[in-house]
Amino acid sequence: MFSSWSGIPTKEPVPGVKMRVLTGERVQMVLFEIDPHTEIPQHSHPHEQMGTVLEGSILLKVGNEERLIKKGDAYIAPPNVPHSARTLDERAVVLDVFSPPREEYR
Amino acid sequence: MFSSWSGIPTKEPVPGVKMRVLTGERVQMVLFEIDPHTEIPQHSHPHEQMGTVLEGSILLKVGNEERLIKKGDAYIAPPNVPHSARTLDERAVVLDVFSPPREEYR
Repeated sequence: MFSSWSGIPTKEPVPGVKMRVLTGERVQMVLFEIDPHTEIPQHSHPHEQMGTVLEGSILLKVGNEERLIKKGDAYIAPPNVPHSARTLDERAVVLDVFSPPREEYR
Repeated sequence: MFSSWSGIPTKEPVPGVKMRVLTGERVQMVLFEIDPHTEIPQHSHPHEQMGTVLEGSILLKVGNEERLIKKGDAYIAPPNVPHSARTLDERAVVLDVFSPPREEYR
């Protein structure tokens, strides 16, 4: 099954954040476009999450560790570990993957 | 847990293909850099696979459907569905995700 991200409708889970979702049986890819100076408040979920920055940078906190991650960086947020993110002066494009898929994102 | 793709050692599963692997409990991200005119022979596995093209393009066949997919395109290869890929004149960078993780890629 083939898709283009540009052909997938966007949702806006938080103001300043656009997301496009591609859901399989076991895994889900989500492309996030995040405006500058935008915050994704701390949250956690039982789903494992991994991600990589495709453009720009985000200040990401996973558990107690906070890092400015940039294009070419990746991270793992293990199940149930609280995490939050915010952009600084530049927008960011981040590809996240979840397993199992998050039902509320379908 | 934070990583940079550039800090992850490369493996070469097929001549002309470099891969870097980040493995979680349920999901695995693999960054592939594929030289021009390189073929990844048809194969299948019980792991679900999804991917997206980050640079360049690949001619991807999943089941009986073949497409030239480019930056911004994505695909799903369901469990046990044979798939193959080859590059044409340009190199490609592709991010694939597997669930469960492929043990031989760890």
